[in-house]
Amino acid sequence: MSNQKQFQVAIVGATGAVGEQILKLLEERNFPVKSLKLLSSARSAGKKLTFKGQELTVEEAKPESFEGVEIALFSAGGDVSRELAPAAVERGAICIDNTNAFRMDPDTPLVVPEVNIDKINEHKGIIANPNCSTIQMVAALKPLHDRYGIARIIVSTYQAVSGAGAKAIEETLRQSREVLAGNEANPDVLPVGSLPVKHQIAFNAIPQIDKFQDNGYTLEEMKMIRETKKIMDDESIEVTATCVRIPVVYGHSESVYVEFKKDFDLEEAKQILSDAPGVVLQDDPANQVYPLATDAAGKLDVFVGRVRKDISHPRALNLWIVSDNLLKGAAWNAVQIAEYIAIKQEKA
Amino acid sequence: MSNQKQFQVAIVGATGAVGEQILKLLEERNFPVKSLKLLSSARSAGKKLTFKGQELTVEEAKPESFEGVEIALFSAGGDVSRELAPAAVERGAICIDNTNAFRMDPDTPLVVPEVNIDKINEHKGIIANPNCSTIQMVAALKPLHDRYGIARIIVSTYQAVSGAGAKAIEETLRQSREVLAGNEANPDVLPVGSLPVKHQIAFNAIPQIDKFQDNGYTLEEMKMIRETKKIMDDESIEVTATCVRIPVVYGHSESVYVEFKKDFDLEEAKQILSDAPGVVLQDDPANQVYPLATDAAGKLDVFVGRVRKDISHPRALNLWIVSDNLLKGAAWNAVQIAEYIAIKQEKA
Repeated sequence: MSNQKQFQVAIVGATGAVGEQILKLLEERNFPVKSLKLLSSARSAGKKLTFKGQELTVEEAKPESFEGVEIALFSAGGDVSRELAPAAVERGAICIDNTNAFRMDPDTPLVVPEVNIDKINEHKGIIANPNCSTIQMVAALKPLHDRYGIARIIVSTYQAVSGAGAKAIEETLRQSREVLAGNEANPDVLPVGSLPVKHQIAFNAIPQIDKFQDNGYTLEEMKMIRETKKIMDDESIEVTATCVRIPVVYGHSESVYVEFKKDFDLEEAKQILSDAPGVVLQDDPANQVYPLATDAAGKLDVFVGRVRKDISHPRALNLWIVSDNLLKGAAWNAVQIAEYIAIKQEKA
Repeated sequence: MSNQKQFQVAIVGATGAVGEQILKLLEERNFPVKSLKLLSSARSAGKKLTFKGQELTVEEAKPESFEGVEIALFSAGGDVSRELAPAAVERGAICIDNTNAFRMDPDTPLVVPEVNIDKINEHKGIIANPNCSTIQMVAALKPLHDRYGIARIIVSTYQAVSGAGAKAIEETLRQSREVLAGNEANPDVLPVGSLPVKHQIAFNAIPQIDKFQDNGYTLEEMKMIRETKKIMDDESIEVTATCVRIPVVYGHSESVYVEFKKDFDLEEAKQILSDAPGVVLQDDPANQVYPLATDAAGKLDVFVGRVRKDISHPRALNLWIVSDNLLKGAAWNAVQIAEYIAIKQEKA
């Protein structure tokens, strides 16, 4: 591999919760990096981060920052992506965008490598990384869809605070300490940083992730609904979602009801999940084995358990799907896409 | 009310998380108590508790303890109820049983006063208090069922640790402190005290409440399914449930998908919920108002919000239902039943 093509890479939002994980994964996976630019807002510029023993200084992201960049991984919010991803594309970079900015754009592939890696060939400069809660669900459900055809999905989520960024993690830990000490929680970040009302997350469950839409769903719920159909490439799948933030730091959990078009065999469905790429079946009720957020944290896979035939519908299955929202739900899915791009260009 | 009939009352399990709340409610509600016996296991006997300024000594519960008792509130586990409730009935007491022991017994009414208070007339000595997670759900859904006919319910729960008793509360707080200090959680109680495997609850979500059944569901899930049909008095309602423990101390939350037989109007459905006895509609997304466990804690009502028309099914509604699991979910529902018995005997 000594002659392997090396890439000029940029991470936009390098100091954020996801950016940090991307940096770590590029190093751990030994991604073929020729040069690495760490970019951020003006506020975080000047910070130092380490990559393979080398100290790098974070620079403010500007259109000119992308001169010479071949692969740019964006994770600094939708506004930054909307402003800078086109500038990066203009300069020849392929952007892997972890924000909501381009996900539903018909010209932008929305990719979960285990599900639809072939779509990366259709990009026009930007490849979108789906929402964290969507990624883990479709990774587990796609192989079942291929076999039995999914008619509908009803999902309720149990989402970690790290999905709302580093400030939400700090807030959750601070509030927990305050409440344990008998003090007020004084919420300041969650559920949505930019909205006026804040709710306690410590020892609580908040049924709001992102802003409310006119139909009474939150944007997070609508993301799950729309993105699932786009990634599965099947608008006929009916999806509904209720997204809830709970005081977990890393790892989203999901209670998923799925109704198939065809009859299915429970043992065969478990085998399909067990054989699915990137999916680990953790399902042994007799020994109290099922996925847990604390176990999934720090791991790249999607964990599935509580797999059982629904007793209220002959063609329905219930599952409990857990994955690290910062890894498979964000950084790892993005780096996986970058790896496929690297392999493709290597072969080209 | 000076000539109001006064009752000889016993609380079995008086030192437990629910027993404590029953004692408090009997005082707060000024229940017509002539005499009060506090009963418990031998281990807790001798403890002192206060009722209306009077110190009472907890005694070991034995069959003879029920001599002269007219209303006995049981909350000391299924085994104690199975052993002692019949002994209490023999001695003339009406038992209100908060355990799972008699709930599905065809001769035992399973009562949520807002739903089926008429059933208390059919008792043969024992009236069962439903499972906490069931009570709050049926209290909210019954008025909708009366109007539109419920075809199916798909529920995922976010249940507080207090439902597993005082030890689970202590464990959750202890583990939270340990994890915040960077130490191991060392789980010792949850998910099920009597089972060998323990899981961390602090900053986690455990998809197991009670033991697993042969069909892959837990007993808690099967309780919700069976009890809902019995309380609603309609075996045709299809129900499935996924029950999850989260690090909340007081207040169960539930994400409920409900499919009606008839078409419904969203605003009318909200009005029905708003008018329902014991139910408070908390639903104003524009102002980020929805039920929260921390707000419901210590209150007697069932709170409902996130009421929205399902976008995946024309006759389905989504709801977020929250209530204090130790109050409406246990102690308050039991004391409510006792109040109806008192009124009935007063009138007789």
